[in-house]
Amino acid sequence: MSKIVVGIDLGGTNVKTAAVSQDKKILTQDSRPTAAENGPEAVMDVMAQAVKDVVRDAGLSLEDVTAVGIGAPGPMNWQTGIVYSPPNLPGWRNVPLAESMFKRLNVPCYVDNDANVACFGEYWSGAGQGVDTMCLLTLGTGVGGGIVINGELLRGIDGTAAEIGHLKVMRGGRMCGCGSEGCLEAYASVTGQVRTAKEGIAAGQETLLTELSGGDFENLTGKMITEAENQGDSFARWVTHETGMWLGIGVASLINLLNPERIIFSGGMIASGDSLFSAIRETARANAFEVPGKRCEILPAGLGADAGVMGSAACALARHTGEL
Amino acid sequence: MSKIVVGIDLGGTNVKTAAVSQDKKILTQDSRPTAAENGPEAVMDVMAQAVKDVVRDAGLSLEDVTAVGIGAPGPMNWQTGIVYSPPNLPGWRNVPLAESMFKRLNVPCYVDNDANVACFGEYWSGAGQGVDTMCLLTLGTGVGGGIVINGELLRGIDGTAAEIGHLKVMRGGRMCGCGSEGCLEAYASVTGQVRTAKEGIAAGQETLLTELSGGDFENLTGKMITEAENQGDSFARWVTHETGMWLGIGVASLINLLNPERIIFSGGMIASGDSLFSAIRETARANAFEVPGKRCEILPAGLGADAGVMGSAACALARHTGEL
Repeated sequence: MSKIVVGIDLGGTNVKTAAVSQDKKILTQDSRPTAAENGPEAVMDVMAQAVKDVVRDAGLSLEDVTAVGIGAPGPMNWQTGIVYSPPNLPGWRNVPLAESMFKRLNVPCYVDNDANVACFGEYWSGAGQGVDTMCLLTLGTGVGGGIVINGELLRGIDGTAAEIGHLKVMRGGRMCGCGSEGCLEAYASVTGQVRTAKEGIAAGQETLLTELSGGDFENLTGKMITEAENQGDSFARWVTHETGMWLGIGVASLINLLNPERIIFSGGMIASGDSLFSAIRETARANAFEVPGKRCEILPAGLGADAGVMGSAACALARHTGEL
Repeated sequence: MSKIVVGIDLGGTNVKTAAVSQDKKILTQDSRPTAAENGPEAVMDVMAQAVKDVVRDAGLSLEDVTAVGIGAPGPMNWQTGIVYSPPNLPGWRNVPLAESMFKRLNVPCYVDNDANVACFGEYWSGAGQGVDTMCLLTLGTGVGGGIVINGELLRGIDGTAAEIGHLKVMRGGRMCGCGSEGCLEAYASVTGQVRTAKEGIAAGQETLLTELSGGDFENLTGKMITEAENQGDSFARWVTHETGMWLGIGVASLINLLNPERIIFSGGMIASGDSLFSAIRETARANAFEVPGKRCEILPAGLGADAGVMGSAACALARHTGEL
């Protein structure tokens, strides 16, 4: 049997781990609590044990592992594998994650930020297969981004590239968490979508969201918006359409700038399906140049919950073989 | 003597041509009227003669020429060298420019769009020397763009990438010539800058521009704005600052997306100097992430009027040797 690669998706709540074959199949996988409150050394022990377990479950040993990839929250230095101070990993400060994991496993370890990892995963074995140039937007609390150009992740000189959520779409617009105004993320993240809903409700819109949130709009979530929409609520449909239009404007900028073959969306919000994607596609095509606008396919992600482990495995393999 | 390369800058008014050594020196150069009204065959005869003349003036023959590069207005297919129908070259329609020039000269000929050529020229021998990743914005009637990533022009799958002027900076903003709303070009081209001035004057601003334009604001030009500013006109200074702020917002998007080492500006508008560049730099740094914002140098172009011939020569050389 040829060697395998192990991918780890390090989240604030769970560590997901998978043994992945070089022909892109998940052989075994595992999810266990991160227990982030125990600090970085304990979390790395959890990850190392998970690697050993998925490899053993696949009937293999660590000697059969080419490399281990870890998708972690930023900010970080992907080249040195040092993770600075991610908001959802308390107590982490300049942790030499790649080096410390290598010490535990004696297998080459590669660290990348989670949005880049998810993008490269979609490129390797998801909705981006077969293209050379693509973008991924992850729609969550923020809007994360990854960009593959000619088969390689776009890194930038400091490794900070592909912050698609911080394209400026509205001079003097909404304040963004990054400290700037009018970022795509301020409108098109789940947080931004919920804010759009709250503003509409404050302006007097009638909506099922009143009932779904129990009358307290501070409880409003993206899921409630999708649920209200599924129940035929026209205000919720408008909120999704509006969010899709903001995304479409950002996508039009990406198309004019990068002329990519595909732009892929992931995250819970894509459960809205056609009502979201038709707004993105129509707005993007109306605002991009014709040739690249027609060329670019706008699609939901293909990997779902496996994006993190598959992407981490893919990045580690590509970096280990010198392709990335 | 080692072989040389010839660069041609094909404009609607003049054909500029230079014989360039591989160590990036202009040996001889020439400028003659395009006489575009005579149609594509006659224009190509003019270009072929100019190539022969600059090579002869350098004391060489066509056998000493590695390649000829032609920077031409788009739209075009840079790979086939076919130029579709540029607005300022009447009668041109799907002209096989690279092939037709090869037939006239029996030297490999490479065609690229003028903004990409200018960008690669700055990278090769101008203000972009020594970096791996940079952007160029050409500020003219429109805002042209070029992007070099890891030493290569970013082309995109259809060759339409790097349309920096068509980043969306304002949802629902000014109508742009491309048919979309809120493009950077609609605010930050010379045309956009003049429009900003006209809107301010219509709103009652007192300015020297009234006198400079002879009282007819339809005659207003970008040069008049620079001139009024140099004479201490505070409204003209505001117009330049406002234009710089729009550019800074576009630059912040580029920094967040590409994390480039330099962003370079060319075109007549850069004569405004510090009043323009300080607005660009301050706005960009206030709106980009800190690390890439501090990293990115924002500079005027280094090549001036030679950008077209140097860039065409550089592109042809890099493409001929397989580096591009």
